[in-house]
Amino acid sequence: MTLQTRTNGTLRHLLTLEGMTRAQLEALLARAQKFVKPIGEPPVQSRSLDGITVANMFTEPSTRTRVSFELAAKRLGADVVNLEVQLSSRVKGESMLDTIYTLEACHVDVFVIRDAEAGVPGLVAEHVQPHVSVLSAGEAHLSHPTQGLLDALTILQAKKKFDGLKVAIVGDVKHSRVARSALHVLTTLGVGEIRIVAPRALMPEAGEFVGCERFTSLDGGIAGVDVVMMLRIQKERMATAQIPDADRYFAKFGLSAERLAKARPDAIVMHPQPMNRGIEIASDVADGPQSVIRDQVRNGVAVRMAVLEAVIEGRH
Amino acid sequence: MTLQTRTNGTLRHLLTLEGMTRAQLEALLARAQKFVKPIGEPPVQSRSLDGITVANMFTEPSTRTRVSFELAAKRLGADVVNLEVQLSSRVKGESMLDTIYTLEACHVDVFVIRDAEAGVPGLVAEHVQPHVSVLSAGEAHLSHPTQGLLDALTILQAKKKFDGLKVAIVGDVKHSRVARSALHVLTTLGVGEIRIVAPRALMPEAGEFVGCERFTSLDGGIAGVDVVMMLRIQKERMATAQIPDADRYFAKFGLSAERLAKARPDAIVMHPQPMNRGIEIASDVADGPQSVIRDQVRNGVAVRMAVLEAVIEGRH
Amino acid sequence: MTLQTRTNGTLRHLLTLEGMTRAQLEALLARAQKFVKPIGEPPVQSRSLDGITVANMFTEPSTRTRVSFELAAKRLGADVVNLEVQLSSRVKGESMLDTIYTLEACHVDVFVIRDAEAGVPGLVAEHVQPHVSVLSAGEAHLSHPTQGLLDALTILQAKKKFDGLKVAIVGDVKHSRVARSALHVLTTLGVGEIRIVAPRALMPEAGEFVGCERFTSLDGGIAGVDVVMMLRIQKERMATAQIPDADRYFAKFGLSAERLAKARPDAIVMHPQPMNRGIEIASDVADGPQSVIRDQVRNGVAVRMAVLEAVIEGRH
Repeated sequence: MTLQTRTNGTLRHLLTLEGMTRAQLEALLARAQKFVKPIGEPPVQSRSLDGITVANMFTEPSTRTRVSFELAAKRLGADVVNLEVQLSSRVKGESMLDTIYTLEACHVDVFVIRDAEAGVPGLVAEHVQPHVSVLSAGEAHLSHPTQGLLDALTILQAKKKFDGLKVAIVGDVKHSRVARSALHVLTTLGVGEIRIVAPRALMPEAGEFVGCERFTSLDGGIAGVDVVMMLRIQKERMATAQIPDADRYFAKFGLSAERLAKARPDAIVMHPQPMNRGIEIASDVADGPQSVIRDQVRNGVAVRMAVLEAVIEGRH
Repeated sequence: MTLQTRTNGTLRHLLTLEGMTRAQLEALLARAQKFVKPIGEPPVQSRSLDGITVANMFTEPSTRTRVSFELAAKRLGADVVNLEVQLSSRVKGESMLDTIYTLEACHVDVFVIRDAEAGVPGLVAEHVQPHVSVLSAGEAHLSHPTQGLLDALTILQAKKKFDGLKVAIVGDVKHSRVARSALHVLTTLGVGEIRIVAPRALMPEAGEFVGCERFTSLDGGIAGVDVVMMLRIQKERMATAQIPDADRYFAKFGLSAERLAKARPDAIVMHPQPMNRGIEIASDVADGPQSVIRDQVRNGVAVRMAVLEAVIEGRH
Repeated sequence: MTLQTRTNGTLRHLLTLEGMTRAQLEALLARAQKFVKPIGEPPVQSRSLDGITVANMFTEPSTRTRVSFELAAKRLGADVVNLEVQLSSRVKGESMLDTIYTLEACHVDVFVIRDAEAGVPGLVAEHVQPHVSVLSAGEAHLSHPTQGLLDALTILQAKKKFDGLKVAIVGDVKHSRVARSALHVLTTLGVGEIRIVAPRALMPEAGEFVGCERFTSLDGGIAGVDVVMMLRIQKERMATAQIPDADRYFAKFGLSAERLAKARPDAIVMHPQPMNRGIEIASDVADGPQSVIRDQVRNGVAVRMAVLEAVIEGRH
């Protein structure tokens, strides 16, 4: 994705982790680590985004990802405006771009965009002026790059390395942008083995997740892994009978303490949230000693601070 | 409510005024008084909440109480994020708590919570980490502690004392969190006589408001009082025929100038807003010389600044 | 509008441009010009509104005008709160004013109000305290004064003068607050000739736009003009058959490159946005070398900074 990188080699946009180099990813993780503070200690604050304006463009008002970006920007000294918008490249692409141009003319420097439709962040990135950056906060089922980075950072903190790790991604892999961004980042960072575990109906097409071993049984899928990445299951899919109902889903694919015991004893458990407790994950596992789910959230703000700082710093 | 107080004696949460000591309440009022400035003068600003993050979690976007908390936090230097959320302990308690944990992991220090359901602020307070505080901004019909404090401060400013005052609380006492918080704070601060005045259908159960004389006639209820606290009537209750329609309600329980004359000549008139002018209160009374309704609002920001400062200061 | 001006001659409210003196308008434009920075350079920031609180009261959450005001206020150091409200003088005037009084008692200094109903900003301005200012952000079809100012500033930047210019305002003039504010400001600033170009159904009444030549043909209307101000057409009006459908509208009143050639070769093209590309304006014209549409947006923030600074500065 040369669109993402400036000719001086710095990061300009963050649309996907696919194609980023190991050095780029490691630099972002190192930058993010500087922003990590234990929960209960004051967050890092700086003025490195002083005079910078960030526009959060989300389709829903209250998403936690929006708050995470908002706090990341404010703690670096940026001005932040929140807009609820339906961006859509298909129906009204030009009108969407006019909204972007309008905000750009208000001296917005960074657009943070979440949209259910594929292609929107990239389309915006192609049209903004050279000093403006676009950060995807989740694009359809394709990409959620800051989530991928925070997942990688969380694994690195727990395991101190990527090489040789075994990671199982479990659940609705087919529809998951979290799974795809995890695949991209972890592969590039040298994770040795990535498995995908899903019911047949939620298994991605054969052309995707190439090189990942596929499991339709959770017991087999997590045997001996270092990292268990659970995904959120959309309950709506149960209604349409693609997959069994909640109880049967939990029985087959829910991460219980018994099941988790099949992974390595020091395996960590991750979830991008929001969780369906009792459906894809048991509460005692979500809150248990192997869970790093709250570390993921904490790292999320740090990663977003790092990305914001990197794209602005690189303009000079 | 030991949940509210740290072992070092400082205030940690503000969920209810019930059970707080006179010394605690007086300290909060004294702290709030420092933040009071006449309307038209610049508000007090400080940096005492620098580095602190406050999350306003309200079920509606535009409530004036949200704005009051937002401005209180900003004027102390805090970062503020607003979330519209439906919190509910009953249906989805764990999912609600996961939202709280997520924000906590984003280094949110203070949750300001309004919810129509009883128990939510307390449930959150039980689950947050030791450095985190929860402030109720209105809990079902039970409690509205910052409203109680601002009401007490307004009375103190006007009357210079609590001892020996006679206070009438008038209207839909049964469903009113404002009335309950007023009862708690004024009783502890030494108000001599609290009367409740309501139509039979809106009179609280006998087990509540113990020690308050009850009146179903406004004329009798406000005779000789120092303070008339009017409550908002929900027009929806008229539709269900629990109480008479607007005109008849005003004729029986509306505070007109003639009726107000039965109180002490220096009696003050209060209302928590929003007012139904012409239903529970006549416009000339609401805007008249005995009204302290706008003082209440001004004191509301000061009280919220005081509470925010107190719970953060007490962490050290 | 003496309501707008303090006895010391300074601007207190901005409700309409009608009746403002040429000196007042020129002073605002000169002040705004100081805040203009090219897109891509950092915006001007100052602390001249430090300690000031601005309440944005809009009926919709995401309007670009709200963001423009919000950024203008923040870049001057003000605290900003956003409220979504349905203000309406007709149904619930007193309740609306109580909301205003409440915010005033929270030390709000400036109300920025957009409402679909005529009379609301003026009604609020009549009732706020002497230190408080009201800025209209769009009032029914009547007035959009900051839009008029930004349009004037944009013309001045391009043409260096107003005297002797010919301006065509094209489209739904009848329902347009943008057209009315343009008329007021440009007439006072000395524009020599203002033409209105509209289908018969969208032509204003004879008693309005007095002195403007009227055209029902776009070709004739823009012949030889220096400035073409396009207006947004409401597609809903097409459904009601007041005007032809989109294709036929474009054929008759859409600004294509061919049509634009009938204006002066150095004519500029303006649009208040959002644009219906392909209906009232061709995309190649909107994005072409004669378009100053993005300058208008950039100037919008500068104009709002100037107005905010002026009304606060004038209090002293």
